[in-house]
Amino acid sequence: MDLLKFFKYVDEHQTHYVSLLREAVEIKSVSAWPEARPEIVKMVHWVGDRLKKLGATVEYRDVGEQELPSGQKLALPPVLLGQLGTDPAKRTLCVYGHLDVQPAAREDGWATEPFQLIEKDGQLFGRGATDDKGPVLCWLHAVEALQATGQDIPINIKFVFEGMEESGSEGLDDLLAAEKDKFLAGTDFVCISDNYWLGKKKPCITYGLRGVCYFFIEVQCAKQDLHSGIFGGTVHEAMSDLMYMMNTLVDAEGRILVDGLKEQVAPLTPEERALYKDIDFDPEDYRKDIGTNCCIQKGDKVGGGRGTGARGHWVGLRYLDIGSNRCIQKGDKAETLMARWRHPSLSLHGVHGAFSEDGAKTVIPMKVTGKFSIRIVPNMTPESVEKCVVEYLNKQWKKRASPNEMKAFMFHGGRCWVTDPHHPHYQAGARAIKSVFGVEPDLTREGGSIPVTLTFQEVTGKNVMLLPVGACDDGAHSQNEKINITNYIQGIKMLGSYMNEVSKISE
Amino acid sequence: MDLLKFFKYVDEHQTHYVSLLREAVEIKSVSAWPEARPEIVKMVHWVGDRLKKLGATVEYRDVGEQELPSGQKLALPPVLLGQLGTDPAKRTLCVYGHLDVQPAAREDGWATEPFQLIEKDGQLFGRGATDDKGPVLCWLHAVEALQATGQDIPINIKFVFEGMEESGSEGLDDLLAAEKDKFLAGTDFVCISDNYWLGKKKPCITYGLRGVCYFFIEVQCAKQDLHSGIFGGTVHEAMSDLMYMMNTLVDAEGRILVDGLKEQVAPLTPEERALYKDIDFDPEDYRKDIGTNCCIQKGDKVGGGRGTGARGHWVGLRYLDIGSNRCIQKGDKAETLMARWRHPSLSLHGVHGAFSEDGAKTVIPMKVTGKFSIRIVPNMTPESVEKCVVEYLNKQWKKRASPNEMKAFMFHGGRCWVTDPHHPHYQAGARAIKSVFGVEPDLTREGGSIPVTLTFQEVTGKNVMLLPVGACDDGAHSQNEKINITNYIQGIKMLGSYMNEVSKISE
Ligand SMILES: [Zn+2]
Ligand SMILES: [Zn+2]
Ligand SMILES: [Zn+2]
Ligand SMILES: [Zn+2]
Repeated sequence: MDLLKFFKYVDEHQTHYVSLLREAVEIKSVSAWPEARPEIVKMVHWVGDRLKKLGATVEYRDVGEQELPSGQKLALPPVLLGQLGTDPAKRTLCVYGHLDVQPAAREDGWATEPFQLIEKDGQLFGRGATDDKGPVLCWLHAVEALQATGQDIPINIKFVFEGMEESGSEGLDDLLAAEKDKFLAGTDFVCISDNYWLGKKKPCITYGLRGVCYFFIEVQCAKQDLHSGIFGGTVHEAMSDLMYMMNTLVDAEGRILVDGLKEQVAPLTPEERALYKDIDFDPEDYRKDIGTNCCIQKGDKVGGGRGTGARGHWVGLRYLDIGSNRCIQKGDKAETLMARWRHPSLSLHGVHGAFSEDGAKTVIPMKVTGKFSIRIVPNMTPESVEKCVVEYLNKQWKKRASPNEMKAFMFHGGRCWVTDPHHPHYQAGARAIKSVFGVEPDLTREGGSIPVTLTFQEVTGKNVMLLPVGACDDGAHSQNEKINITNYIQGIKMLGSYMNEVSKISE
Repeated sequence: MDLLKFFKYVDEHQTHYVSLLREAVEIKSVSAWPEARPEIVKMVHWVGDRLKKLGATVEYRDVGEQELPSGQKLALPPVLLGQLGTDPAKRTLCVYGHLDVQPAAREDGWATEPFQLIEKDGQLFGRGATDDKGPVLCWLHAVEALQATGQDIPINIKFVFEGMEESGSEGLDDLLAAEKDKFLAGTDFVCISDNYWLGKKKPCITYGLRGVCYFFIEVQCAKQDLHSGIFGGTVHEAMSDLMYMMNTLVDAEGRILVDGLKEQVAPLTPEERALYKDIDFDPEDYRKDIGTNCCIQKGDKVGGGRGTGARGHWVGLRYLDIGSNRCIQKGDKAETLMARWRHPSLSLHGVHGAFSEDGAKTVIPMKVTGKFSIRIVPNMTPESVEKCVVEYLNKQWKKRASPNEMKAFMFHGGRCWVTDPHHPHYQAGARAIKSVFGVEPDLTREGGSIPVTLTFQEVTGKNVMLLPVGACDDGAHSQNEKINITNYIQGIKMLGSYMNEVSKISE
């Protein structure tokens, strides 16, 4: 393969690649919005059409219906299965990506329209730019650029692109299991580009992910919303019960209070601890990236790195002295990384059904639903976590002794995943990175969840690798999501070079 | 005055009166929605145009700007000042009403479009039907019907109609104070129709109201929303702090935990207690009105009235045994009424800035605002309540020892009001009710807040009366707000007859 010719072609077609990402971002494929379902279908077909132009065969697989919390049924978007090449002499790579995105609205604090791609200072802002439309397009562009420069695609590729990842990948596990000996047969390696570099400059390869279990707590106190003037003082209010319940989940230091969870966490071996030593990560930079901005807005309360003993805004460093309240000047790298990668965490996301707008409304909501999730790590499973959480919440509810109705349940659960970072497949990934960036990648884990990773590993029985394109500050799931133009363009090169490396794995 | 001729005319024009209410409901004059401000202006002018047709002079008074929580400024809608008649030989009545409404959306659980008036089973459903567009129109229709039946309007009327009542009546107090010796000069009595009958069948006159103090608790933990996978476990989350704060406000029985509030409540005298004895109110009916429906949905857990000792869904009766958890079979009337009218209550309304939609979003919100309000009673004042609440929350925050930023403040505060229910003005109101309904009204208080009541009393120095048109189950501030057609039509008659009675007050 003539890598230099390929790289040159990619550089020369930057504007074209950006314009295609612009098209993709404009499709509002938000899987959490039931009304946006047709947009997801549109996005899936948009990618399918492009794959066909590259010579792939494409199938759209119906994976059934989703049951909404209301009990309503909604058709799931089809899963795209694409096959490029069937040469038995070549290695076969299975590539997964997702075409749906997180919700986004200008009012949430976006500086620009979230569903328009806006270029500014070398960055491309827009929902899905980095999660996961940008990386998915990198795969397509790599194939296109190899073909355009007259080069043979050195491997067979099986594409699996879904549209429900941000809402639990419903239907996908069943489809993959059913395709084990059909579409997925013959897979040698699996590669997923749906996470981020640990920092902003240095590429990495990722060998572990936390899972996520998403819970709802529903409390109902009346058959309709009530006027707080007329009824206030005579009703056990659902919101008051919900605040009580949500306040039983974590303590002030973020420690999970649910019984039986920490016993499930795999103990830390000296071997694992040693792995964190060589990672290129500065917890002080990490703190500053958010803590410093916090300072700009709020004053002078950052403790770390300033020679003060005051408690800071930012507690990325508290794992240095687990269980302590103190803010320590300089964080320990390994402890901070472990807090993100190998300890569970619990986040409270919000309340549905209560008054959530600007301004004032004097309502007693009839039914409110609290939402939270737990990031899980080995050896926790969604089943074991669900059991502990539901039991714990039912126990808290008994203590509350409220006459209202409460229901706590797991909305969806995704498993965690860890594999061997020294596998030949990872070595191939590292060589691809070296060919583009000139450096050895760090071997990292991630705090986020891509539950299908484990499914792919189990169904194919093959090594799975996570090869991120975006940088740590891309703001996936946040306002002003972006991808750097360099990450996007170098990502195309990296994936093309990686195809070449995969073709050479001897094992 | 030929009352019968007037009554007959009103009955014959029912369809016309309903069609005018339909027009008014279709104007989305929601004061809590900044973007709906033009709709409020439209509504104010719609009423002004109708008043002009009745021969009134109309002025639209600019009352300045509103500062939104974001710091943005937004023009307040004008206040309508209308004058009908200036005969010095006649009594002068000042009438207040509001033209703005509470927020409403089909998705909140409305059975029909909230901004369309839907007639069903003798009821007119639509946002504002009873609060307060219906009653405001009753005033206009009463004047119109008296004129149409060739009768002299026996009093002078000063109309004060505003468009910000549901959002704190901003600007109105200042305007009324400035108009004390101008527009309001010569006022003999003030009448407000913006509350509800105690029950569904029997009319009442209201001599007391609770005030309301609306509070915000803001907590910020980052400069932008964060992905809970990437950052979870290393941030002190704002939501977790907010749940803690909101859980410190009331206990499981709805008792307010804020220090220094209950000491402000006027002691109950034997004379006041005696007043509750003769009210036509059945706490068991009251419980059933919501409790029974609750049962239909949920099973068999209602305790009261079933001979079981089990705790029920509904705690309207708990004041029988204050401080007790027990659900007693048959509630005490006076205690239930006092819980609604003369005890303070605290309601948690919701959270702004967190994830509030259907479905699942794995976000750590950067800034969340908790919203709650306290209904206040004599001798509490917004100032005294604000002081206690802010001090209490600051104390709780100190206990929490979070590194985040917290700000607790009163968003708006409205005073409570109580007057003498035996005043000649109230006797005139009672005679008007008797002429239409054939019964003596109950003398009631209300749990809701119409803060300008007290302002009118103070600025005019005259007696203020609350003369409700709607029934207790109209669902103001709730889904499926409605007014009964009979209440609406009899309300027109009642207000016309009341004008006649006011003209005869000798005092
Ligand atoms: Zn993703
Ligand atoms: Zn994502
Ligand atoms: Zn009102
Ligand atoms: Zn209202």
